Amino acid sequence: MSASNVPYKIYLSENEIPKAWYNLRADMKNKPAPLLNPGTGQPLTAEEMSGIFCEELVAQELDNDTAFIEIPEDIRNFYKMYRPSPLVRAYCLEEQLGTPAKIYYKFEGNNTSGSHKLNSAVAQAYYAKKQGLKGVTTETGAGQWGTALSMACSYFKLDCKVYMVKVSYEQKPFRREVMRTYGAQVTPSPSDTTQVGRKILAEHPGTTGSLGCAISEAVEVAVSNPGYRYVLGSVLNQVLLHQSIIGLETKTALDKYGIKPDMIIGCAGGGSNLGGLIAPFMGEKLRGEADYQIIAVEPASCPSFTRGVFAYDFCDTGMICPLAKMYTLGSGFIPSPNHAGGLRFHGMSTVLSQLYHDGLMEARAVEQTSVFEAAEQFARVEGILPAPESSHAIRVAIDEALKCKETGEEKTIVFGLTGTGYFDLYAYQQFNDGTMTDYIPTDEDLAKGIADLPKVPGLD
Amino acid sequence: MSASNVPYKIYLSENEIPKAWYNLRADMKNKPAPLLNPGTGQPLTAEEMSGIFCEELVAQELDNDTAFIEIPEDIRNFYKMYRPSPLVRAYCLEEQLGTPAKIYYKFEGNNTSGSHKLNSAVAQAYYAKKQGLKGVTTETGAGQWGTALSMACSYFKLDCKVYMVKVSYEQKPFRREVMRTYGAQVTPSPSDTTQVGRKILAEHPGTTGSLGCAISEAVEVAVSNPGYRYVLGSVLNQVLLHQSIIGLETKTALDKYGIKPDMIIGCAGGGSNLGGLIAPFMGEKLRGEADYQIIAVEPASCPSFTRGVFAYDFCDTGMICPLAKMYTLGSGFIPSPNHAGGLRFHGMSTVLSQLYHDGLMEARAVEQTSVFEAAEQFARVEGILPAPESSHAIRVAIDEALKCKETGEEKTIVFGLTGTGYFDLYAYQQFNDGTMTDYIPTDEDLAKGIADLPKVPGLD
Repeated sequence: MSASNVPYKIYLSENEIPKAWYNLRADMKNKPAPLLNPGTGQPLTAEEMSGIFCEELVAQELDNDTAFIEIPEDIRNFYKMYRPSPLVRAYCLEEQLGTPAKIYYKFEGNNTSGSHKLNSAVAQAYYAKKQGLKGVTTETGAGQWGTALSMACSYFKLDCKVYMVKVSYEQKPFRREVMRTYGAQVTPSPSDTTQVGRKILAEHPGTTGSLGCAISEAVEVAVSNPGYRYVLGSVLNQVLLHQSIIGLETKTALDKYGIKPDMIIGCAGGGSNLGGLIAPFMGEKLRGEADYQIIAVEPASCPSFTRGVFAYDFCDTGMICPLAKMYTLGSGFIPSPNHAGGLRFHGMSTVLSQLYHDGLMEARAVEQTSVFEAAEQFARVEGILPAPESSHAIRVAIDEALKCKETGEEKTIVFGLTGTGYFDLYAYQQFNDGTMTDYIPTDEDLAKGIADLPKVPGLD
Repeated sequence: MSASNVPYKIYLSENEIPKAWYNLRADMKNKPAPLLNPGTGQPLTAEEMSGIFCEELVAQELDNDTAFIEIPEDIRNFYKMYRPSPLVRAYCLEEQLGTPAKIYYKFEGNNTSGSHKLNSAVAQAYYAKKQGLKGVTTETGAGQWGTALSMACSYFKLDCKVYMVKVSYEQKPFRREVMRTYGAQVTPSPSDTTQVGRKILAEHPGTTGSLGCAISEAVEVAVSNPGYRYVLGSVLNQVLLHQSIIGLETKTALDKYGIKPDMIIGCAGGGSNLGGLIAPFMGEKLRGEADYQIIAVEPASCPSFTRGVFAYDFCDTGMICPLAKMYTLGSGFIPSPNHAGGLRFHGMSTVLSQLYHDGLMEARAVEQTSVFEAAEQFARVEGILPAPESSHAIRVAIDEALKCKETGEEKTIVFGLTGTGYFDLYAYQQFNDGTMTDYIPTDEDLAKGIADLPKVPGLD
C-alpha cells in the first residue's frame, strides 16, 4: 500500500497542475437534488440564478453530466502562484505516535488567504471578470473566505464588496486589514448601506450582526447594482467543482509514488474542502474501480451529518436563499457561543449529503478540546500551526493511526490540512489557558431547529 | 543573464538541501573584528563565551577559517519539514511594472515562525540538546525569533524560556500564544523572576519593558541555572553561518536554470537574513570569480549602515553583552515610536559591517510609508502578504526594476523575502487608514547616540 523513498514533501511541477476540474456529479448514479425556488417549490432555473450568480458559474452549478471542465489559462496562471500545494508525509507525527500507519496530508495553507478557499475564489472572480462585471459581493464571518476573494479580485481588477459580521469586524481586525490591503471594501454588517441592514439596525440597534444578515446585505447589493453578482465560498456544486483540484493533485502525487490510500479524512463545514479532496477517489469508488474509506469530520457542537436530517432547507439563516436538500440542523441552528473551531454551518453540500445518504462515506463528530489537543500535538512535531477547522481532520487521523498501532495494520491515511491557524489565536489562547470548554447540543436543542424546517410547496 | 522556461516557483528536491553551511568569513581577507570583553578590552575567549553559549556554537562563532561546516543530519531532517524554500520568479510583478528586468525572490515565510529565523533556531536548539543541556533562554520583541526558537525546542524536547518585552506581551498576544502552543514559557519582561528584573521593577514600577532589559533577564537566567544557555537570533557570526542555507539554495536554484543575477537585495536589521542570502555570492566576489551588486536595505528611521559609525559598541541597550566592531548608531539609540517596520537594531553584524566598510556592498535607507506602498503593490500581484522587514527589500527591488524600465536594461534582480506579515497587521492597518507617518532622525539625534559609544580599554 505504501512506497519507500517518499520525501517529506511531494511537490508536483507546475505542468502537473490539473488542466481540468473533475465534476464528481457526472459519476453519481443518484444525483444531488436540485436547488428549489422557495416560493414555487420548483427547481431553480438558470434564468432565476443568473440574476444573482455569474452565467458561467450558473452553468457549472447545474451541470450534473460533464465529468471534466477545463480550467481556463488565466486561472491556471493564478494557481501557479501558490500551487501545486505540497502533499506531506507526516514522518514526525508517525514516529511520535509509534504507529505502523503511513500518514499523508495535503496542505492548502501556503497562501495568504491561509486556506483552500482561494481555489474557488479565483475561479469565481475570473468568470465575473470574463462576463464583464464590475464587481462581486459576498459575506464573511471571521474572514477566511473574504480574504481569499479579495486576493482574487485584486488580481483580476474587480471591485470586491465584503459584508463582515460586525462582531468579527470589530473584535478580529486582522483579516479585515488583509482584505483592505488587497483593496476590498469591507463593511461591518448590519450596515446602513442596504435596506435590509437599515431595517435590522432600526429593530435591533445594538446588534453585533450574524452571517445570515451579512448574506442578506451582500445579495441585496449584488441584485440592486448593475454589473455586480453575489459569490459564495462553500456548499455550492460549483465550489466543490473548483476544489476538486485538491483531490486531483493529491491523487497525482500519490500515484507518482505508487501509493494507494486506505482512508481519506477531511473536515466538513459546508463541504468545500472535503468535496474537493475526495473527488477523484470517490469517482473511482462510484465507478467501481477502487474502494476507499472516506470520513467526514464535523464538530460535535454542529453535527449536521451525524445528528441532522436529510431534507430541504434554506442555506442561510436569513431564509432568502434557495432551498437545498441536505443534511441539516435547521437554518435557525447556531452553535453554542463557546464553539471556537469553525465549521459552523447548519447544513452541508447537497453532493456530499447525497453521497452520505447513499452510504458512500462516513461521518464522525469530535469535541473541540480534543481537536485542539490534536492541533497542538501536530504543530509540535510537524511544525505547522493548523487551523481549528483542519484540526478536526487531524484528530481523526491521529485516532485512526493509534488504532493501527493496536492492531498492527499498516494503513495509509490521507487527510486534508485545509489551512493555518494564524488568525485563530484567540481560540489557541483559550486552549493554552485551559478555559476552552466543550459543548454537545441536547436532543431537545436539535429537535427545535429541525422542527422549523420549511414546508416546501408541492413536497411533503 | 536569464533563461527561458523558468517556472513561477523553483523548488529544489530534498536531496538538494545543502549538506554544509558556508562560512563566508573563510574567504574574507579582512576578517570581522573579534568580540571584546568590555571589562578588559581583550578578545573574548572560548572559555568566557561558553558560560553563556553552547560549546559547539562558540566554536562556530570563533571559526574564521573553515569554509564549509557540515549540517548535522538531525538538523537536515528538521529542515525537510519546511525546506527547500521556493525561489519565485515574480512574473506578475514584472508585468505590472512593465520592466524588462527579471525579478526573483527567495521566500522564507512558509513556516509557522513566519520567517527565516527558524534556520538558525533549529541549529542552536540542536547543539544545546547535543551538549546535554536542559534548556535555553532568549529574549523576543514582537516574537518572531521567540516563535522560531519555541518550534525548534519543541522538536528537540528542550525547555525554552522566552523573555518577551512586556508591551508586546500584552498588546501583541498572538505570537505569544504561538510560543505557548509550542510549549515555551513566555514571561513578560521586566519580571520578578530575575534580580535585574526586580531591580528595574522597583526603580520603574510602571515600565512596559525594553529589548535591552529582556536580554539582561534571559542572560541572567541562563548563567544562573545549571543546564541552561542563552541563544540569540541575529547579529552573531554563528547565526549568519546557519542562514547561509538561504543563499546556498538560492544559488543552486539559479544555477539549475543557468541564471546569473546582477543584483542581490536584502533587508538588514542585525544582518542574519542578508548575511545568509548573499553568502555564496559574496564568496565568489571575494574570490574574484564573479561580480554582483549587493544592496542592504535598512529603515530610514534606524540607519546603521548609511548614517552610523564603524566602531566598537555594545550589542544590547543594557550594556551587558560583549563589544562588537560594527556600524552602529550607539547602543542607546531607539527608533522613533512611529516606526512600525521592524529592523530596529542599533548595530549590524560584524561580518556585514566589515564587508560594507571594505566597499564590497552598498546600503540604502528607505522610509516606511514607501515600504508599505511596495508591500501592498507586491501583495496584490504576487499573492503573498509580506512582513514589513521583507518589504524594505521589495521597495528597492521595485525601484531598481523601474530604473531598468527607463534604461531598457534586462537586469536580473534577486531579493530576499524573509517572511510574512500575518502578525504585523496593526502596521498594515495604520497604512490602510492613512495614519502611518515617516521619521528620519536628525543629525543631532544621531550624534547623541554616537557620542555615548563605550571607551574600550586599550583602544582609542
